[in-house]
Amino acid sequence: MSVFSPLVENLITELAKLPGIGKKTAQRLAFHLLEQPPERAEALAQAIQEAKAKTELCSLCCNLSDSDPCPICADPKRDHSTICVLESAKDVNAMERTSAYHGLYHVLHGVISPLKNIGPEDIKLQELIVRLQADEKVQEVILACNPSPEGEATSLYIARLLKPAGIKVTRLASGLPAGGELDFVDELTLGQAIEGRREV
Amino acid sequence: MSVFSPLVENLITELAKLPGIGKKTAQRLAFHLLEQPPERAEALAQAIQEAKAKTELCSLCCNLSDSDPCPICADPKRDHSTICVLESAKDVNAMERTSAYHGLYHVLHGVISPLKNIGPEDIKLQELIVRLQADEKVQEVILACNPSPEGEATSLYIARLLKPAGIKVTRLASGLPAGGELDFVDELTLGQAIEGRREV
Repeated sequence: MSVFSPLVENLITELAKLPGIGKKTAQRLAFHLLEQPPERAEALAQAIQEAKAKTELCSLCCNLSDSDPCPICADPKRDHSTICVLESAKDVNAMERTSAYHGLYHVLHGVISPLKNIGPEDIKLQELIVRLQADEKVQEVILACNPSPEGEATSLYIARLLKPAGIKVTRLASGLPAGGELDFVDELTLGQAIEGRREV
Repeated sequence: MSVFSPLVENLITELAKLPGIGKKTAQRLAFHLLEQPPERAEALAQAIQEAKAKTELCSLCCNLSDSDPCPICADPKRDHSTICVLESAKDVNAMERTSAYHGLYHVLHGVISPLKNIGPEDIKLQELIVRLQADEKVQEVILACNPSPEGEATSLYIARLLKPAGIKVTRLASGLPAGGELDFVDELTLGQAIEGRREV
């Protein structure tokens, strides 16, 4: 039995649809918004509408952007011979923060997952193939899906697809995270670190 | 260094202003919204705008409502001789869920907190006094602020204010929570449970 007005109830329901936001948190957020000055709530509503209305996928790399091609694809100073393949648009930011990569990106917007009924045609893979066929400058594709089972499977699938075309396909190194301790690292990671050991 | 478009950056900033939502969660929510069909994001934006535009405070009990007086104050079947004083509008729902209370409410929208520079004039206390002076039917005021130091102090302040007017002032019982275990209950709660023991 709820005594919230239908409008408040609707706001709570909409907020609770966000990932990681349960009914209780949604209530807290809703009441926070209702107790704020009107311009604060309006700012959030407008930010959602504008971001949604004006961002689109870059026709080259499928990254979210408000221009097409996106600033990264349009930047002549970046290395156009390397494409880093990522699962999601937010991973682009993670890569950029490292300042260790200066090539282009390709965002898949998902990974192949037979369990969730997501096949190669449901992610932006076809776009990558078309892009590679059209652009002869590309010499290396770096596969940087998350090291989850689905991510690994997707990487393998793409690698098999691209190898015959003679493009160099690499993937991110697996091993110990910086600041980690051997004692606390899981067996799989430590095993990969041993396997991928490098001469010093 | 961020590579998000300014609109996405703005959406993340606005989301991060919500309570309990950090930069990282805000990013996750923003990308979730951007990856959804447009009508989903629009539904959230509209829910915020409508709830904000059309809910107001009930002129009697200061509860958030889309009508004035609110459905509870307007309900002739409720006990108009009892007013339960609450800290926040979401506490009304908590009280209603119990089905144990059938009187009216008064929402303070805050508690007295000298440390946060919130005095009696900053909460809806004056409205309660005016209401009690205008309405002679009220026989009991139940103080139901949270059992925090600020809540306790506010209860005490209100009790001292109302006692001279000859209104019965009560407060919620303190004691063991249902399903709790003596061994795990803190000393203060157990002390209050002993003090408030009742004959069986």
